[in-house]
Amino acid sequence: MQEYVLYNDAVINRENAAIDMEDRGYLFGDGIYEVMFVYNGRPFAVQEHFTRFQNSARKLEMNQPFTNGQFAELTNELIEKNNIINGIVYIQMTRGKGPRNHLYERDAEAIVTGFAREMNPPKEAQVKGIRALLTEDIRWLRCDIKSLNLLGNTMAKRKAADYSCAEALMHRDGICTEGSSSNLFIVKNNVLQTHPANHYILNGITRQFVLDIVKELKLNVREEAFTIEELAGADEVFITSTTMEITPVVSIEGDIASEYKIGKVTRLLQEKLKEKIGALCHMK
Amino acid sequence: MQEYVLYNDAVINRENAAIDMEDRGYLFGDGIYEVMFVYNGRPFAVQEHFTRFQNSARKLEMNQPFTNGQFAELTNELIEKNNIINGIVYIQMTRGKGPRNHLYERDAEAIVTGFAREMNPPKEAQVKGIRALLTEDIRWLRCDIKSLNLLGNTMAKRKAADYSCAEALMHRDGICTEGSSSNLFIVKNNVLQTHPANHYILNGITRQFVLDIVKELKLNVREEAFTIEELAGADEVFITSTTMEITPVVSIEGDIASEYKIGKVTRLLQEKLKEKIGALCHMK
Repeated sequence: MQEYVLYNDAVINRENAAIDMEDRGYLFGDGIYEVMFVYNGRPFAVQEHFTRFQNSARKLEMNQPFTNGQFAELTNELIEKNNIINGIVYIQMTRGKGPRNHLYERDAEAIVTGFAREMNPPKEAQVKGIRALLTEDIRWLRCDIKSLNLLGNTMAKRKAADYSCAEALMHRDGICTEGSSSNLFIVKNNVLQTHPANHYILNGITRQFVLDIVKELKLNVREEAFTIEELAGADEVFITSTTMEITPVVSIEGDIASEYKIGKVTRLLQEKLKEKIGALCHMK
Repeated sequence: MQEYVLYNDAVINRENAAIDMEDRGYLFGDGIYEVMFVYNGRPFAVQEHFTRFQNSARKLEMNQPFTNGQFAELTNELIEKNNIINGIVYIQMTRGKGPRNHLYERDAEAIVTGFAREMNPPKEAQVKGIRALLTEDIRWLRCDIKSLNLLGNTMAKRKAADYSCAEALMHRDGICTEGSSSNLFIVKNNVLQTHPANHYILNGITRQFVLDIVKELKLNVREEAFTIEELAGADEVFITSTTMEITPVVSIEGDIASEYKIGKVTRLLQEKLKEKIGALCHMK
């Protein structure tokens, strides 16, 4: 089947979307991205993703060509033309092309690309939980920018897979930050805890939804850093992300070795997040 | 004039070299590169650059398709077809293309691209020295890999330019590391000092040549980290890189404020490096 992709402000045949070898995204990883989940043919939390997209662009001093409306329209066009019912929409933006030079210009014309692809939430992982590997966080100090500089993340993911783990959890000098493509929560004595949204982590959209739900439910939550010892001693551990939603962690190896039960708090939050997604995406 | 570029194992017309939007170099910055200087139509230190290219590939577990001979041949072909007398050859290699996934496969087929371009060594900067900005090093903890994850470098370079400085020098918690696209040396009481070649810096080829020359001249050198206070108190400061060769720093602003004279050690090393380049590239 013909695949349609986003190329700047149009959805076109994939075969017509060529990238220049001197695109700054290709030379420097000089760009940003978003991944949105599609449920029932509808993108979840487009507004929130666009806001973060704008924030990432601002932090990197990139020109961002879209209004909220255009971003949502192009997202919908990708979904429709590719007949996606459940899946993802990926959109990235680079600082454009030009002769290679570390020094960027603030008026550079961005290049936007994107695609939509079928995918289902990982039901089994959400029911049974996953194994995770705890390893060192070697990334840069601006993890708050959703940038294309992802080698630290991909290396951690590879290491996790080598230990038959679905995700790598990372710590910087003993302080837990987040997963290689997810945020990390612990529960101890019915109190939730997750790293604050500063330059050490990427403030996930699902993380933000979970924190909203936690407040609606009047659960206790601390957005404060915790140590690998606190992680080891937690009652419940789960990760959040656009594609994993809320997924329990049942075992951690690597820099600690711990087993966890999937607890009531995790199950309650999973249920409430599904409800929220269902309501926002008009699911039965 | 027609430009010829490297695309995998062939030098082709630039217009025929298209990159896929799901090349891992474009999505994750998942790749490595080298920049070689061309003097008198001859590439300088191809063997050394290829060795580092191989090392970067190994550290990222990427398949590297070239022998030393092929790498040198393709470099020469780029130079000849583009009629470069003085300039650079840039070669990069990514982990190839495939559906976007953080997890990489070790048997992925690499994609190689490259170009050659006219450029002259910055004579005025080498004679008169440059101004530099000292700023925080926010990069990841594997700076020893010459990877395409260069946002920390490009942001520092932009900041330097905003202060009318030609280079950004970086420090991590008060320890000087290197420049955004160069290595950093200081001279104090006729002793040279530069950061050791560990995971905090990229071991520059010019840095290695300078250290060789220093040993040939029996000068005193310490490959040991130094603080921003030691940088401020240095007698001479210079940077080294493939395109800047040895360039004196005459003023630093930002996190310190210092002025420097261009000293005898810097001038001697500049002269000896030019001699070495001249001999290796058959210049008159």
